[in-house]
Amino acid sequence: MFDKILIANRGEIALRILRACKELGISTVAVHSTADADAMHVRLADESVCIGPPPSKDSYLNVPALLAACEITGADAVHPGYGFLSENARFAEILAEHNLHFIGPKAEHIRLMGDKIEAKKTAKRLGIPVVPGSDGGVGPDDDAMAIAEKIGFPVLVKAAAGGGGRGMKVAHSAEDLMLALSTASNEARSAFGDASVYLEKYLQKPRHIEIQILGDGRGGAIHLGERDCSLQRRHQKVWEEGPSPVLAAAARAKIGATCAKAMQDMKYLGVGTIEFLYEDGEFYFIEMNTRIQVEHPVTEMITDIDLVLEQIRIAAGGELPATQDEIQIIGHAIECRINAENPQTFRPSPGKIMQYHPPGGLGVRIDSAVYQGYVIPPYYDSLVGKLIVHGKTRGECLMRLRRALDEMVVEGIETTLPLFRALVREPDIIDGDYHIHWLERYLAG
Amino acid sequence: MFDKILIANRGEIALRILRACKELGISTVAVHSTADADAMHVRLADESVCIGPPPSKDSYLNVPALLAACEITGADAVHPGYGFLSENARFAEILAEHNLHFIGPKAEHIRLMGDKIEAKKTAKRLGIPVVPGSDGGVGPDDDAMAIAEKIGFPVLVKAAAGGGGRGMKVAHSAEDLMLALSTASNEARSAFGDASVYLEKYLQKPRHIEIQILGDGRGGAIHLGERDCSLQRRHQKVWEEGPSPVLAAAARAKIGATCAKAMQDMKYLGVGTIEFLYEDGEFYFIEMNTRIQVEHPVTEMITDIDLVLEQIRIAAGGELPATQDEIQIIGHAIECRINAENPQTFRPSPGKIMQYHPPGGLGVRIDSAVYQGYVIPPYYDSLVGKLIVHGKTRGECLMRLRRALDEMVVEGIETTLPLFRALVREPDIIDGDYHIHWLERYLAG
Repeated sequence: MFDKILIANRGEIALRILRACKELGISTVAVHSTADADAMHVRLADESVCIGPPPSKDSYLNVPALLAACEITGADAVHPGYGFLSENARFAEILAEHNLHFIGPKAEHIRLMGDKIEAKKTAKRLGIPVVPGSDGGVGPDDDAMAIAEKIGFPVLVKAAAGGGGRGMKVAHSAEDLMLALSTASNEARSAFGDASVYLEKYLQKPRHIEIQILGDGRGGAIHLGERDCSLQRRHQKVWEEGPSPVLAAAARAKIGATCAKAMQDMKYLGVGTIEFLYEDGEFYFIEMNTRIQVEHPVTEMITDIDLVLEQIRIAAGGELPATQDEIQIIGHAIECRINAENPQTFRPSPGKIMQYHPPGGLGVRIDSAVYQGYVIPPYYDSLVGKLIVHGKTRGECLMRLRRALDEMVVEGIETTLPLFRALVREPDIIDGDYHIHWLERYLAG
Repeated sequence: MFDKILIANRGEIALRILRACKELGISTVAVHSTADADAMHVRLADESVCIGPPPSKDSYLNVPALLAACEITGADAVHPGYGFLSENARFAEILAEHNLHFIGPKAEHIRLMGDKIEAKKTAKRLGIPVVPGSDGGVGPDDDAMAIAEKIGFPVLVKAAAGGGGRGMKVAHSAEDLMLALSTASNEARSAFGDASVYLEKYLQKPRHIEIQILGDGRGGAIHLGERDCSLQRRHQKVWEEGPSPVLAAAARAKIGATCAKAMQDMKYLGVGTIEFLYEDGEFYFIEMNTRIQVEHPVTEMITDIDLVLEQIRIAAGGELPATQDEIQIIGHAIECRINAENPQTFRPSPGKIMQYHPPGGLGVRIDSAVYQGYVIPPYYDSLVGKLIVHGKTRGECLMRLRRALDEMVVEGIETTLPLFRALVREPDIIDGDYHIHWLERYLAG
């Protein structure tokens, strides 16, 4: 097992990793920007190192500074969290070159899945259902129109290097297609430095359902059921739950087994998420995230498996925590990502938290790194905290969530709490009857 | 179902009841003393009524003020919590006389179990194992020595109306007995206004194990397993856990079934706890508490049954939430009662909480009514909050508890957090090898 882990992140995920390390008895090093000197992950770590000023490229993305922090403190492993360097294959390699453990998958798998076109090819090869599409980049020499007509309109034009909705356009007809191609390609070039785009079947009202997997890097892999993350705003997940309100046990077992088998074939190491669109009973692979995800607590609450702790154990050569047969889905969990934003305009609202009361009681979990008196800096994401609620049934979970949301107090800044208080009372949400466009339409209405 | 519940209590249990009411969609009325105007239960209730100044006899125990608060607010039911009026049979009757529902057992059962001698007789009649003893009060005309010799020394002399260790003496030999009888009797008269005492077998190193029961008042009753509350200081529970580290499933099922059967025979209504001493594989009835207990979250965490919510549902005529076969014990839970006290001297430490960070994350539950900036008043019990941790196994639970205790921050007052941080690292505690005298000896050593 590792002796000392450097946590190359900030905010709630840095605290989350810190908790797992403490439970394992591993020493912790926090790193922080000058803007984060008072952050909770710094206060609770055994040691901390300032690695530069904001913005992130000068601190949390500053690889030489992170290497120096490992050197100074004698850390033997680095946990990248999510975002920042978590899906940077080169970072994983650089750490290895310095005899430091990267707590994450093999660099080759990060690289493979980081390229959306390669990822889709790999998924297809491994038997994972993919959305019908161009099977690769659509260049100037390809007959984009013929491909689009074969797939059937509407089609989606997507950046190969994309993410977060940038470089993504819908073409509803042949007339739309050329404009969509050039717009998406231009956006992709400016956002990612890579103009490659590809075509995909555009689903009308799909759900976003993702499978959590865990692999030992030696050919062992299990799945831990799914999360339904269909409630999104601008492709950002807002509300995640598990199990999905629309997935029967047999369908879960089938797609889960397919994903686990693929990970066994790849000899995948650590935690990962295989994301799908789901419509009319069919799954369509979107992408694979080769890191811990923001919404991982949903899975933890319904399996009672600590994903971050297991991620660390497995990175150190440990066994999988359970066989597939031992994994049981117990009850239902919902996570709300509460942001420091105006609940109507979603404009970020950094500033000082004057009053803070996280809800407590049965079935309620808080993953947050804020405290009363803490100043949320303007440089980073606006996550105040994640409220995760568990119940024996989805109905009980919603009942507890409604209570917990009503009880939570965050004063001094604006937050999206009012949005969640409204959502938890919406008939479609109560019925589980929503899809990836539902929230945008609700907010527009 | 009730429309509006008046919560005749304060602190964390008032907030606990409020949470259950909110989940059930029932309006809430908080009552408070002048010292509790800023308390969280007042802030979070739909309405609140000031019922007088401290001490409690002028407010939380002031029945006319509580009746007036019900009248003013139109509450149709009263939840007494624990302590205060929760085991006052006359209060339950007075509420009934005013057409108000008392959320608790039938008055006759409160009265019956409130008298320790009658309670023991009843337990024996209902087939619950009792500690060998005098089968009633020992008066001046009884041959106390003959009774004691029949039981076998050491014997315990206990006040019939007692509780909390007052009016309780151990006689190790015939020579000790007369002094113990007169001392206990005198203490009992001054503490409870009733000099009656009785004799019991004195167990050497028993554990305190209690069975949680739930009855529908119509002859239906189930048990929800046990809590081990052996870690006590001056007869006050400090650390509670479930399942007991020493009880096998068969022994649990047997004592549980005995208790459930007794409650079926009594037609007991609502939540209750049957407390036992446990030594050498034998259970010995101590008393029954006819109310929700401080340590009820332990049972909630291992059964996922909300005891307070079910208590309210059942008081309104509802069915039991599950059959005995449906009750499953899942994993392990430990509760630490964190008090505002000096961790060495246990002198209360009321005052203002300058910094407060309750731990979060997987498996961690906080039941507390304090907040940063809150002033703990000097008039009431010194409970800052209850930290309850769950894990799949006792080992995992201890690991999470250690982490949560280390993470928790309460500044500005003294708390017993350092005691728990030491306990969670003690080999005997880690091994589950302790009894009701263990903590006193540990603290003395």
